[in-house]
Amino acid sequence: MRIGVMGAARIARKNARAIARVPGSVKVTAIASRSGKKAAAFASEVSLAGKAALLDSYGALLESPLIDAVYMPLPTSMHTEWVSRAAAAGKHILLEKPVALDDVTTDEVVASARSAGVALLDGTMFAHCLRWEAVDRVLRGGDLGRPRHVYATFSFDGAGLPAGDVRTKPDLDGLGCLGDIGWYCVRAALRVFAWEAPERVLGHAGALRFENGVLRQCGATLEFSDGRVAVVECSFERAFEQRVAVSTDGKARLEMQDAFLPESNQNASFMVVSKDGDALKPPRVRRTTVPTPVPQESRMWQSFARLCAEPKGAASLEAMRQAALTQRVVNAVARSLKSTPPEPARVRELSPFLYESSPDDVKGFLSDLNAVSA
Amino acid sequence: MRIGVMGAARIARKNARAIARVPGSVKVTAIASRSGKKAAAFASEVSLAGKAALLDSYGALLESPLIDAVYMPLPTSMHTEWVSRAAAAGKHILLEKPVALDDVTTDEVVASARSAGVALLDGTMFAHCLRWEAVDRVLRGGDLGRPRHVYATFSFDGAGLPAGDVRTKPDLDGLGCLGDIGWYCVRAALRVFAWEAPERVLGHAGALRFENGVLRQCGATLEFSDGRVAVVECSFERAFEQRVAVSTDGKARLEMQDAFLPESNQNASFMVVSKDGDALKPPRVRRTTVPTPVPQESRMWQSFARLCAEPKGAASLEAMRQAALTQRVVNAVARSLKSTPPEPARVRELSPFLYESSPDDVKGFLSDLNAVSA
Repeated sequence: MRIGVMGAARIARKNARAIARVPGSVKVTAIASRSGKKAAAFASEVSLAGKAALLDSYGALLESPLIDAVYMPLPTSMHTEWVSRAAAAGKHILLEKPVALDDVTTDEVVASARSAGVALLDGTMFAHCLRWEAVDRVLRGGDLGRPRHVYATFSFDGAGLPAGDVRTKPDLDGLGCLGDIGWYCVRAALRVFAWEAPERVLGHAGALRFENGVLRQCGATLEFSDGRVAVVECSFERAFEQRVAVSTDGKARLEMQDAFLPESNQNASFMVVSKDGDALKPPRVRRTTVPTPVPQESRMWQSFARLCAEPKGAASLEAMRQAALTQRVVNAVARSLKSTPPEPARVRELSPFLYESSPDDVKGFLSDLNAVSA
Repeated sequence: MRIGVMGAARIARKNARAIARVPGSVKVTAIASRSGKKAAAFASEVSLAGKAALLDSYGALLESPLIDAVYMPLPTSMHTEWVSRAAAAGKHILLEKPVALDDVTTDEVVASARSAGVALLDGTMFAHCLRWEAVDRVLRGGDLGRPRHVYATFSFDGAGLPAGDVRTKPDLDGLGCLGDIGWYCVRAALRVFAWEAPERVLGHAGALRFENGVLRQCGATLEFSDGRVAVVECSFERAFEQRVAVSTDGKARLEMQDAFLPESNQNASFMVVSKDGDALKPPRVRRTTVPTPVPQESRMWQSFARLCAEPKGAASLEAMRQAALTQRVVNAVARSLKSTPPEPARVRELSPFLYESSPDDVKGFLSDLNAVSA
């Protein structure tokens, strides 16, 4: 699998290094940047000088026979155009999150990939951590009871945001902290509740925005069926925290203090905290540690390679569905937070058509969508 | 200090034992229950048989010359009447929380005590844990930065609620889980933000009620000035959890996993989690352990004894103010949750009059209030 990197964003450095650590034959073979200097600096930083072709335009990258797939860390507002062009060029796409800035362009992005028969995976590294597979098994196993409540929070001290960071720009990544780190919280909640769509979402009080209106702190409650809820919080304005806690209707809580970026590069763990009987007795804490010989960011590229081998297969469709559902929920939170006080927002249903039809049928759907968003 | 216990509620057993552990001269000298049998069983259970007088009515207890103060674990709907009668009888009052079911009766309870010149303390045990004094010092010290966000949660698996528990009865403790365990979360948030009143509160989606309308699960965001927020969550419907986490505008988070009921009876601890520089490095965790030779529930009685020695003093007024403010916020959350979706509720200001006037002046205020609530 030969990857072309589209743009020299900071996150692309992490991914180029992640690709280098993938056992097997995934490698970066080309790097495109509108500045040749930037591309060269990037290649040298990630030890690819002389090994990857340097191209001075994204268009040239897509036409290059040197690559099978692109890694696309472009600002979100550019996704629709470039996913469409990459898909048309027959390249598989690993797309940085968030996928899109609204529901229509989300569908457009998915439909572009579907109609061209290429794979599309969103760049959510934590989802590929082996630890989460163990968490799935424990939660689905039923011994702890049924998950009833998720608290997921991701925040950091925004003084560390580089000046001019795209996450503070309404025309680039208009979803701000919600599309950036809130994304992970939403994704974790959806995974715990087995990819069910919440019935509605309601933003919390206390949201903060940059002067240009971009979110820099917010929270929301996602309501699932049967009174199950997830509370998600994200902020660029406070101390670093990345916690997911799942309470069940039994007597247990499953908890990760480093849910999204594991603190060790050897392993990742989760705790099951349970309490029986006397409230005054300390709870029982069982820690499960999962070895992670391949870091989650490299495992993401392994997953991507598997999807590329079967881009129209069930796993590939499921990956697109998860990306689109996460985006739908993020968008619903953003809509809810648009009014003060926040108003409840419905999570718009995914079009089953997008995930069930043949690529040729999706082509028609896509041109309709294009007409809507034009 | 001679205490009369008013009613044989479950929580009264814990308090009778707590009083027995207070070093010095605080003791239970009388127990009243409308059932003489219950009073006798209670006395024997808490090793007071033959040591405390057994009375068969609350009225008789208040008239008894054997006591200086009462412990009042009555259902909340009975507080106004019995606080008023106890105060008129010149008895100091340790009142179980919540204080009252609305803002007017909260003022009435405080005014009864103030006009009679007796002490009134709400039964919030955790607030008297020595650990929290250390937490205050660390948060006020400024080394961690300014507190910006509090997450406080208290929940337990309600299958453990005794059948017919008062916390499920609209006519007894109509605030349900919010008045019971949500109270602690609100109190913790207020303490972290130095007893400032939030500007408004907004309930979260996902509140659950018993069939009779009493809350069994809810959450809310409290908005303080300058975009500082507290998220509080409480539930009778999920696994036991009692966590308070305070994030600052610096790089630190102060955290207690057993914030309300310490897991050890030897000591209580808190963690300061901080992260400098590289997001991928594990955070630094410093644990501070505070020896607790006297358990928090016994320290509460020591505090109460001090207030009783100076019932009109500044500390006594501050205790009443904190109780009333906690109740105001709890009531605002309840109001916010009355509509679906929740609407923002203002926290009604405390009447400075109540905390600044002479007992005689408060008498006039009290009769006006009585007229309002009659």
